[in-house]
Amino acid sequence: MADIGQEEDFEAARQKALKIGATKYVLVDVRREFVEQQCFPAVQTNAIYENVYLLGTSLARPVIAKAQISVAEQEGCFAVSHGCTGKGNDQVRFELAFYALKPDVKVIAPWRLPEFFNRFEGRSALLAYAEEKGIPVTQTKAKPWSTDENLAHISFEAGILEDPDTTPPKDMWKLTVDPTDAPQTPEDFTVQFEKGLPVKLTYTKDGQTVSVTDPVELFLTANAIARRNGVGRIDIVENRFIGIKSRGCYETPGLTLLRTAHIDLEGLVMDREVRALRDQFVTPAYSRILYNGMYYSPEGEYVTSMIAPSQISVNGQVRVRAYKGNTIILGRSSETEKLYDATESSMDEIGDFQPTDTTGFIAVQAIRLKKYGETKLGK
Amino acid sequence: MADIGQEEDFEAARQKALKIGATKYVLVDVRREFVEQQCFPAVQTNAIYENVYLLGTSLARPVIAKAQISVAEQEGCFAVSHGCTGKGNDQVRFELAFYALKPDVKVIAPWRLPEFFNRFEGRSALLAYAEEKGIPVTQTKAKPWSTDENLAHISFEAGILEDPDTTPPKDMWKLTVDPTDAPQTPEDFTVQFEKGLPVKLTYTKDGQTVSVTDPVELFLTANAIARRNGVGRIDIVENRFIGIKSRGCYETPGLTLLRTAHIDLEGLVMDREVRALRDQFVTPAYSRILYNGMYYSPEGEYVTSMIAPSQISVNGQVRVRAYKGNTIILGRSSETEKLYDATESSMDEIGDFQPTDTTGFIAVQAIRLKKYGETKLGK
Amino acid sequence: MADIGQEEDFEAARQKALKIGATKYVLVDVRREFVEQQCFPAVQTNAIYENVYLLGTSLARPVIAKAQISVAEQEGCFAVSHGCTGKGNDQVRFELAFYALKPDVKVIAPWRLPEFFNRFEGRSALLAYAEEKGIPVTQTKAKPWSTDENLAHISFEAGILEDPDTTPPKDMWKLTVDPTDAPQTPEDFTVQFEKGLPVKLTYTKDGQTVSVTDPVELFLTANAIARRNGVGRIDIVENRFIGIKSRGCYETPGLTLLRTAHIDLEGLVMDREVRALRDQFVTPAYSRILYNGMYYSPEGEYVTSMIAPSQISVNGQVRVRAYKGNTIILGRSSETEKLYDATESSMDEIGDFQPTDTTGFIAVQAIRLKKYGETKLGK
Amino acid sequence: MADIGQEEDFEAARQKALKIGATKYVLVDVRREFVEQQCFPAVQTNAIYENVYLLGTSLARPVIAKAQISVAEQEGCFAVSHGCTGKGNDQVRFELAFYALKPDVKVIAPWRLPEFFNRFEGRSALLAYAEEKGIPVTQTKAKPWSTDENLAHISFEAGILEDPDTTPPKDMWKLTVDPTDAPQTPEDFTVQFEKGLPVKLTYTKDGQTVSVTDPVELFLTANAIARRNGVGRIDIVENRFIGIKSRGCYETPGLTLLRTAHIDLEGLVMDREVRALRDQFVTPAYSRILYNGMYYSPEGEYVTSMIAPSQISVNGQVRVRAYKGNTIILGRSSETEKLYDATESSMDEIGDFQPTDTTGFIAVQAIRLKKYGETKLGK
Repeated sequence: MADIGQEEDFEAARQKALKIGATKYVLVDVRREFVEQQCFPAVQTNAIYENVYLLGTSLARPVIAKAQISVAEQEGCFAVSHGCTGKGNDQVRFELAFYALKPDVKVIAPWRLPEFFNRFEGRSALLAYAEEKGIPVTQTKAKPWSTDENLAHISFEAGILEDPDTTPPKDMWKLTVDPTDAPQTPEDFTVQFEKGLPVKLTYTKDGQTVSVTDPVELFLTANAIARRNGVGRIDIVENRFIGIKSRGCYETPGLTLLRTAHIDLEGLVMDREVRALRDQFVTPAYSRILYNGMYYSPEGEYVTSMIAPSQISVNGQVRVRAYKGNTIILGRSSETEKLYDATESSMDEIGDFQPTDTTGFIAVQAIRLKKYGETKLGK
Repeated sequence: MADIGQEEDFEAARQKALKIGATKYVLVDVRREFVEQQCFPAVQTNAIYENVYLLGTSLARPVIAKAQISVAEQEGCFAVSHGCTGKGNDQVRFELAFYALKPDVKVIAPWRLPEFFNRFEGRSALLAYAEEKGIPVTQTKAKPWSTDENLAHISFEAGILEDPDTTPPKDMWKLTVDPTDAPQTPEDFTVQFEKGLPVKLTYTKDGQTVSVTDPVELFLTANAIARRNGVGRIDIVENRFIGIKSRGCYETPGLTLLRTAHIDLEGLVMDREVRALRDQFVTPAYSRILYNGMYYSPEGEYVTSMIAPSQISVNGQVRVRAYKGNTIILGRSSETEKLYDATESSMDEIGDFQPTDTTGFIAVQAIRLKKYGETKLGK
Repeated sequence: MADIGQEEDFEAARQKALKIGATKYVLVDVRREFVEQQCFPAVQTNAIYENVYLLGTSLARPVIAKAQISVAEQEGCFAVSHGCTGKGNDQVRFELAFYALKPDVKVIAPWRLPEFFNRFEGRSALLAYAEEKGIPVTQTKAKPWSTDENLAHISFEAGILEDPDTTPPKDMWKLTVDPTDAPQTPEDFTVQFEKGLPVKLTYTKDGQTVSVTDPVELFLTANAIARRNGVGRIDIVENRFIGIKSRGCYETPGLTLLRTAHIDLEGLVMDREVRALRDQFVTPAYSRILYNGMYYSPEGEYVTSMIAPSQISVNGQVRVRAYKGNTIILGRSSETEKLYDATESSMDEIGDFQPTDTTGFIAVQAIRLKKYGETKLGK
Repeated sequence: MADIGQEEDFEAARQKALKIGATKYVLVDVRREFVEQQCFPAVQTNAIYENVYLLGTSLARPVIAKAQISVAEQEGCFAVSHGCTGKGNDQVRFELAFYALKPDVKVIAPWRLPEFFNRFEGRSALLAYAEEKGIPVTQTKAKPWSTDENLAHISFEAGILEDPDTTPPKDMWKLTVDPTDAPQTPEDFTVQFEKGLPVKLTYTKDGQTVSVTDPVELFLTANAIARRNGVGRIDIVENRFIGIKSRGCYETPGLTLLRTAHIDLEGLVMDREVRALRDQFVTPAYSRILYNGMYYSPEGEYVTSMIAPSQISVNGQVRVRAYKGNTIILGRSSETEKLYDATESSMDEIGDFQPTDTTGFIAVQAIRLKKYGETKLGK
């Protein structure tokens, strides 16, 4: 079992595992790796799937799969298993990671074995079976959906959410306060980045200014701020890798804050063309690779190599406000990067700028467009 | 002068123009064209620049330029003029549009004429001159920034905003209520789309359910809802076409709501691959073309031709909530489109789906990845 | 059976089919559809896979599948079949087309049925069986490879070609003369295009200038010219859709000539930015869609809609030389398109061009680069 | 003056320079840097502009500009100059490189100075002046075009070539034998690559097998083979950065051979998805950056960082044939890379491959397409 930051009673999980027949229970703490190796690169790339989903589940899978294979190697296992359904993304993500990390491994996926799926048609049937056998489960009639949780996010899907026009009940959400219940007073904080990585988060606690720099602690602090201010909820109908559409609701509190701050800082310090190339090619490629479970792959490795060179200049700090679901940018600055030059852009002084240069710039750009215009008029 | 929806006293503008020497004042109402030809395609393409800016000013320029050229043709003018500075985007947008629409036109750009820029170094000098000559201007010492307004948005830049770490004063914002002052009660409404175009907005007014369908009225209604709920503020450091970074603050109330709803509906009704192609190629190309003032160009025409074929299936309605700066999706549905199939994605039933098919799908995807894994292990 | 232009004895095929148990033999002539609906759009998009392969087989599959489904509908069939192996692209291409055109169809793919593949391990076993049963087959010990032929191309793979370092024997090639045996005298001809489509091919026959305009006749003429001059051979190791690498040798005579001429004409008449967008997005997307068998798909339809708008200005003629494997451009012209302007580009006259404009153009482009240089020097 | 491999009498150039007023003549040998830093990365990226042009001139400019700035620094110059016209690409390439390498440099571009262009309208006027003043020049009435030459290529443009329908005269071409005059016997050779770089070229000389490994010698050998076999001619109408179309004829002998061999090897050893990403994003971005003179830029540096990670597996050798203008691949192999597996792709054996897996793969791919088909039929 992986401790990837989910709010879970691991001792209860251990007992349950042993009770239902496991010969051994192994718990691996992958929280730090998850934050440093997955969540932070996601911040650096502004990773997002289909304009909305911040990939909270996708980010966790490579880390869990790697830990699982590591334990399998230690324990001398020839096979690994997972409990994902046969219709989802996670089976693909886990198995492709397993095969990439241990190509000769055998994968046992009960949900896709006829002896299993012919007996249990779906989660309802399984819940009934669990109840009958006295196996404790999280999904209940009171919570008619499925969840996946980690340090960065929680997902809700299936059950009553399968009707995409059903608004999730207020008590479904877990990792964030409802915006309507969040404080009336905005909460301001500052995130400092070095090479695109969050390195310091400064906020006010009990009237004191506090800074955190440890990656895990920083991420947890971002989570806490976002959580109490209702930041990070998503509701989406998305396209799964296997070609099925599904509806998911997600909470990604801290990642939402950090990603928004990172995007803002890039405006101040990143070259336009580098950013355009990164935005058009690296961000969607990296996001799709993560979503489709191709993190451990030649293209995963290739696109990952494009992150650091894009972030060399992403140094500075962003002042951010969280307020009732909003992430509001208050200002940004950098002590080292000089691409922004207030004098240069100023409408109040000319500086080194030669206004006549722009005349030439426009004239050259217009060469093609005048021909276009002449062609249109000639028609 | 173009009436593109800015909140302006046109009669005062007319008098001012004639007073300072204009021989004739022509006012053209381009609001409908602006909404139908520019704002709605922006919704259809989810247009956005550098992840944040909704292109409110960029969208207006082609419409204004076209109207200006049209008047120039009517009046027999050989030249047109504009008041944009020599460092910004708008000079480029206006002039490229002028040249495309009337290739033989002469453009007079005072800010780039030596006799002008040698006399007035910047806006401050101009404000002083205006004061001296009794010419009324909007930008004052009390409002130390420059604005551009239209039916979709207002921009604020220059002046005190040139320090990118200065938080805009609360009284700068004009088209939206401050989120902290917005109502405590969320406001729900429904937007219906046909082929990606908003065709009906239904909301509650004085306890009555009201629907608007006229494009301009619909857009103004979206503006009003967003405005009173504090939706649509942006603060960004962006990269101008001429290679200078500048800081801008924007309010784009209704467009923010409509764009968010449109993105959500696409999740329900659009094919995954069409969406991926549109997202990666059409959205950034269309946005960059608009930002750089290339709307009237071969590539502008080409990319525009890619919009309608992407929106054939974007039919349905989205239930949306505006609340203190947030745009929250409550649900979505479509009577005509069938790509989403709750049974198919359900974890509670198998349906036609053969779980063993996924085994084959994963096995084939794994061919490459196993080779990758073997290569990595072999090293 | 589809007559898609392969050099085949259809009567022998009919007899063979009936002899080995077919209850009915249907032959459909799809040559015109193949040329007009597949080969010509491939010319318009300059379609190519992995820099080398002109997609000769991929182009044929949609047309054959469509005809097959059409016959299946007429004959009231609930199932269709194909003889593709379980490791290749063609099974995917046929079946995805079948499912898109007739979603409820059942596909029988013997090579993937255990009762079949457990009995016959590969082509060798099948050849032995065919010999035993007296079934005539093309692939023999004298021709130890597999071929697929149509009006545009022939492929050779498998057998001795599976060693990617084995040079194909000279007598393998079928649709083109060996370049070393081709005539010593170059053959010149002219291709005229309208909206990117070849509409007239003019060449010399027995000392007479001859023009062909019918699409099929034009394509066959291009084939004949290329064939006798040794044009159109390819040898490649490519990546199949299912993730396996395979080696293929191809002859695509006429398509090679027409594609090269089309690319050349686009240089003369197509706007730079439209071409760049088409080259970077449409050409690879269209090619990948074809290669992966996704022609009948939402994205296939979407990308197809992007072809015509890109070809509006592709009108003119190209003078071409075929010579011992080479396609050499001799010149190009257009009576209608005016983007090329010899005066404008001339180094011998200034024309309307203001050299000082370029100074401004460069100065503006240099804004970013000077900052870059300063940053580099400062480090 | 830079010795970048052009076939030039440097002593004559020196005398000419001093005679017409230069105070000092400096010659810098940049051939090795040109091959290693520019030509080889172009091979690694398969760089190409508008499908045809191998960027021979573009590749040379950064190297020349860097050497010029280096001399300027040594000599304490505050300004540099170049002789490019005001309508072309090279002025942009030189000047942007100058500004990036020495942001405070002053650039003197005589062709864009009014006192110059008002006196000399074009090359003809200059040739007349040179004749009058007794200044020796290369372009003559017998050679009515302009050339630019380096170790990798020569360009011909302007003069009689400005009519794009004029076939270049046979005696214009300089660096390659006319294909019709090339030997009747093909010439075979082998190129070995490590990480995408050509490291050994083996060919037959006087009946002996000879290998060259030094980069410059290897490149010159490739040039020699291509030259005598008529390989590497191009005739194109291209789009200049400043928006003008121009016609150019180019000879790029060795680079054509090496690039073709490199593309072929990538088929054998490169992962499909890495290649697809590289082909769609890196190759066009790198090529456009080079063409537009942005080599020394943030994006130039960024895209350059994407080359090496793509070439890790590009190890192996390609057997190539040059014959009368053709570059023919005879075979390829790799001792270290194992992505190609003849058994796996074989149609003669099943190997580890489960044919039923493909059934599942196709079934999952068909989910979307069946829905598409149903939608089409329902309409």
